[in-house]
Amino acid sequence: MLETTIAAIRPLDEAAMSTARQLQARLTKPAGSLGLLEELSVRLAGLAGTCPPPLPSPAAVAIFAGDHGVHAQQVTPWPQEVTVQMVGNFLAGGAVVNAFARQADATVTVVDVGVATPLPTPDHATPDHPGGAAAGGAGAGSAVAGGEGVSRPGGVSEHGRQVPRLVEANVRRGTRDMTVTAALTRDEARSAVEVGIRIAGELIDSGAALLITGDMGIANTTPAATLIAAFTGVDAAEATGRGTGIDDPTLQHKIEVVRAALARHTPDPTDPLGVLAAVGGLEHAALTGLLLGAAARRVPVLLDGVIAVSAALAAAAFAPEAVGAMIAGHRSAEPGATVALRRLGLTPLIDLGLRLGEGTGALLALPMVTGAVRVLHEVATFDSAGVTEK
Amino acid sequence: MLETTIAAIRPLDEAAMSTARQLQARLTKPAGSLGLLEELSVRLAGLAGTCPPPLPSPAAVAIFAGDHGVHAQQVTPWPQEVTVQMVGNFLAGGAVVNAFARQADATVTVVDVGVATPLPTPDHATPDHPGGAAAGGAGAGSAVAGGEGVSRPGGVSEHGRQVPRLVEANVRRGTRDMTVTAALTRDEARSAVEVGIRIAGELIDSGAALLITGDMGIANTTPAATLIAAFTGVDAAEATGRGTGIDDPTLQHKIEVVRAALARHTPDPTDPLGVLAAVGGLEHAALTGLLLGAAARRVPVLLDGVIAVSAALAAAAFAPEAVGAMIAGHRSAEPGATVALRRLGLTPLIDLGLRLGEGTGALLALPMVTGAVRVLHEVATFDSAGVTEK
Repeated sequence: MLETTIAAIRPLDEAAMSTARQLQARLTKPAGSLGLLEELSVRLAGLAGTCPPPLPSPAAVAIFAGDHGVHAQQVTPWPQEVTVQMVGNFLAGGAVVNAFARQADATVTVVDVGVATPLPTPDHATPDHPGGAAAGGAGAGSAVAGGEGVSRPGGVSEHGRQVPRLVEANVRRGTRDMTVTAALTRDEARSAVEVGIRIAGELIDSGAALLITGDMGIANTTPAATLIAAFTGVDAAEATGRGTGIDDPTLQHKIEVVRAALARHTPDPTDPLGVLAAVGGLEHAALTGLLLGAAARRVPVLLDGVIAVSAALAAAAFAPEAVGAMIAGHRSAEPGATVALRRLGLTPLIDLGLRLGEGTGALLALPMVTGAVRVLHEVATFDSAGVTEK
Repeated sequence: MLETTIAAIRPLDEAAMSTARQLQARLTKPAGSLGLLEELSVRLAGLAGTCPPPLPSPAAVAIFAGDHGVHAQQVTPWPQEVTVQMVGNFLAGGAVVNAFARQADATVTVVDVGVATPLPTPDHATPDHPGGAAAGGAGAGSAVAGGEGVSRPGGVSEHGRQVPRLVEANVRRGTRDMTVTAALTRDEARSAVEVGIRIAGELIDSGAALLITGDMGIANTTPAATLIAAFTGVDAAEATGRGTGIDDPTLQHKIEVVRAALARHTPDPTDPLGVLAAVGGLEHAALTGLLLGAAARRVPVLLDGVIAVSAALAAAAFAPEAVGAMIAGHRSAEPGATVALRRLGLTPLIDLGLRLGEGTGALLALPMVTGAVRVLHEVATFDSAGVTEK
């Protein structure tokens, strides 16, 4: 599935981009006055292969949750159990990502790709779909709601709002400690990537016109920093940040942990599966798959923070043209995010010092993407509005 | 009306801000992880005097349109007639501001406070409300839809969308050329400020929970730059930008025009009405009034670009506490906008190189403001969600 997905990824359509540029120049506004949003609208026309491209609505957030063996190295003061507790919070609708998704009319799908402990069985779980489906269940074509390992289908509540949906696709109950051994086997990494590809396909099949990356995993900025250093070659200190807000001594220790993992594995950036296996996380690998799957289907993906952009580097290593489907939602406060965005050549839409993850920064940027496309659909031209040009 | 409005402006409520800070610390997210949005939510609690503050919905865009005598100095290649043509485009729903307002569910009110030529009578104008109402008609308390000088009431279309509304409140058919004489008399400047105060009150009375500044006026970045230089003391070259995209020789000439106006009038920054009269525009003065009127009613205002922030400096000169009601929507590409934002102590939500005006940048930022407040309403606490703290 990974190889066929990569093979399906194609460059942006130059003809559609040219049409979009010409249309932008005829609309009733000074040329270029919408700044980066004009370039974004052109890229989205190129991705869709038509101008105007479709409005990116409805959008779907996919939150991949996983735990990390490197948590044992005390890179964060938060206990590992917070990962599964926050998954419960997402499913109950109580997290910031839920509030922002309700506002943006986006669906929320929570994917357990690597949580260390079994999820509590929700009250309304169907008994024939217990939690904890085995690894390797990344078969193509199953609808999420009826798919393999789904324990909680989600749907529309009595208030007409989307209820978050849980997909059980646990590949492994947390990674191994990358300072001791490889975080994942190559097969495990591949399975997690293919979970992401499958989720992309299912969300698109269900009507999503834009995907949004989400993530949850205590300690997951440590593998993200390591991935960014591995793919870009920057020093560990340049890629590593404070995550949830660690103090100076913990930050110094975290940098040394990243450095030790890089020294142990000397990952080869031209072998992205090897990099993900050595120093990645299950949610990072799944997000890589989501990005590849969306690019293959020519559906845009709005990237959230540092976890997403570390996965984007892996996706770009698999298929450079996959970057054409990516939109940088925001610049995370994590320094590694800036390193990765620069390498990807992406300019973020928002830069507000956000560092929450979950998909929150990307959700805040969604109206800008919609607005950029809406201009091509709705704004009058100088001719049609009878406005004189300079 | 101006004096009573200024007298009604009070500081932010410290108790409500303290409550909001404490609530932010209990929500299920790392402390501070929403960056600037947390500070914004605290300020809005202080403005409302309660925590959580109300969601800023529905929002209302007020686009003030005016023309400029300084257009004769050839500071822009666009003909003056484009101002009135774009007013027609706004009323027909064809401009970028209309597209963004539809997306954000915001109403659009277009106010002719200083257009040089009479507006074409729309097909469905009521004959007893002809265009071109006289200056000084800034009486308080009239509802916009039935108010003085209203020629086109707006309302909800058959598709359930808001139809833009026109308010005729023309104080003068364009300013005088500020390089030759004062742009306005003090009475004209006061009348325009009071138009803005009146519009703020009427929109708030009609239910608007947040106001958005909009503007239209060919050549209006020239008085904006002059206002910014006058209020902050920076050199004309630092305050003046390319507006719609002028070339280098025109930019140099525009800087000299700004410098000449400052040299002629030596405006006193402690006399904001005098500054607005000498080197302002009618839309700048009306926006100043809108900001004062909103602050007096403790309703937030989302600032658009360089025209809005130049008016914000005038409002702050009238009443420093008025800044408490202001939110910087975006950083305009105009250099004067950055000078003004720094002086106001406001950090913009968006920085995408936008330079369109109309209210477009502020409308794109509206979902971030709503999201910042929504967090206080909807997100679970560590206790309520059963999530462990670090």
